[in-house]
Amino acid sequence: MVNEIGFVGLGIMGRPMAKNLIKHGCSLMVNDISLEAVKELTRAGAKAGTLSEIGASCEIVFISLPNGKIVQEVLFNENALSSSLRPGSLVIDTSSVTPDDAHTCENRLKEKGVSFIDAPVSGGEPKAIDGTLAIMAGGKPEDFDRALPYFKMIGGSATLIGECGSGSIAKLANQIIVNLNIAAVSEALVLAAKAGADPRKVFEAIRGGLAGSAVLDAKAPMMMDRNFKPGGKISINLKDIKNVTKTAQEIDVPLPFTSLLLEVMLALKVSGHLEEDHSAIVKFFEGLANVQLGKQSES
Amino acid sequence: MVNEIGFVGLGIMGRPMAKNLIKHGCSLMVNDISLEAVKELTRAGAKAGTLSEIGASCEIVFISLPNGKIVQEVLFNENALSSSLRPGSLVIDTSSVTPDDAHTCENRLKEKGVSFIDAPVSGGEPKAIDGTLAIMAGGKPEDFDRALPYFKMIGGSATLIGECGSGSIAKLANQIIVNLNIAAVSEALVLAAKAGADPRKVFEAIRGGLAGSAVLDAKAPMMMDRNFKPGGKISINLKDIKNVTKTAQEIDVPLPFTSLLLEVMLALKVSGHLEEDHSAIVKFFEGLANVQLGKQSES
Repeated sequence: MVNEIGFVGLGIMGRPMAKNLIKHGCSLMVNDISLEAVKELTRAGAKAGTLSEIGASCEIVFISLPNGKIVQEVLFNENALSSSLRPGSLVIDTSSVTPDDAHTCENRLKEKGVSFIDAPVSGGEPKAIDGTLAIMAGGKPEDFDRALPYFKMIGGSATLIGECGSGSIAKLANQIIVNLNIAAVSEALVLAAKAGADPRKVFEAIRGGLAGSAVLDAKAPMMMDRNFKPGGKISINLKDIKNVTKTAQEIDVPLPFTSLLLEVMLALKVSGHLEEDHSAIVKFFEGLANVQLGKQSES
Repeated sequence: MVNEIGFVGLGIMGRPMAKNLIKHGCSLMVNDISLEAVKELTRAGAKAGTLSEIGASCEIVFISLPNGKIVQEVLFNENALSSSLRPGSLVIDTSSVTPDDAHTCENRLKEKGVSFIDAPVSGGEPKAIDGTLAIMAGGKPEDFDRALPYFKMIGGSATLIGECGSGSIAKLANQIIVNLNIAAVSEALVLAAKAGADPRKVFEAIRGGLAGSAVLDAKAPMMMDRNFKPGGKISINLKDIKNVTKTAQEIDVPLPFTSLLLEVMLALKVSGHLEEDHSAIVKFFEGLANVQLGKQSES
């Protein structure tokens, strides 16, 4: 174990991951643009530090940020992490970015003798809190082995997919499945509700069969309870789905369902649902059919 | 328990359901157009009977047939079940039909004093064999209670959704989720494969997270092993998805994703994949991207 672990980005996902590292005995130096988030972590036992302080004193630095652009700013801006990271140190980026973003980070850090793993996570806030995230990593096996003790503190599983960028590929694949499955659950429950069946009973009846999924169990109750508190915001998932279509267009993979999903999520942005949980994707379909799951099942 | 249970329709789903009833001590009289299927069941301890013999001697008759048209033929044709069913008997239709089909059966049987439950199932052949199907029933509570001991012999769960037809609504909802999730898994793994990530490792990495589902666990390995032996045939699922869009159009529920799915399944019919497992939906996306999951992961 190294002396001090850096953690940059204390959002919905970063905060519980950082706390779990502390719980497992790590000495943490943290940074975020939100002073409140930093305070919450210092109360939990972390030290606060600037990016260059973290770079100078931490051999291993975790990153958890909203997108690839901010990841690169935090790494490569003046006085940012890479200004002070020492050769031999390791950056673990748990953000969801494109494979291209990951390759850029890897190549620019390599010039300074710093290793990089793209290690996006899945499971949302609840699994981040429980320390049972699914971690999908891309990088060198020796760097993965070095990160593994810390992955075990924040995740239920950690898989080395392949070289750098492949963690991000796996995460894009993950986000296709998650968000399309939310759309599928939405169409199914909206149809059931308008056809006069109680969506809660339909949910109970189908969840044990082939329709069963983590999405169905986590998101259908939120839809029916009209609880759209994130969890995983539409804004973050829209960013991921944009990264999917960008990547797919670069390597010639037609994705008719994911493209339609992007249009749906853009429509939800326009109608003001960007900061809600992605279970609010159901609102698009409720709008089309002029029916609401919650109202249906209260009646 | 009644003396003798009727069972009409011994296909992929009917056969294991009938066998589980026998295993739990039911005396069964069976019928199917396939003599081979009937022989298989008589070897397992069932009696063979014509439809009118089954109607005459069984108070409870299970039906498991490919579509609503055949269900109505088996019930209402000359010398079919309803010609001999006695007042007070109960027909349990485990086939996947439209809510309208179920209402028609209920109303026509009611004239003869015969009760009807629509009780479609989910879980596919494996769960039919294990006796752990999810059963979603529509009908009168007293008829559901009468069916329940038998549901427990073939299912892991049985839920009374509401009045007759609501079992079929739940099944349509189920089929939307199952088949759209297969499309989602397909787009995700095809993108990953063409991006150069091993789909097997991606599968292992994401199945513990929010992307996890019964579909992912059951169908992704079939896609990667190039094993498209049904299971649930595309032909049957296409029929269900047609029933979804038919029902949705009648009650004004726009379903953009399910409609797109119908087009995909029609294309798979044209290209000759109708009798394969619905995991073969992946072939549509592989064709678009000119990549194959199995080949990718063997390399």
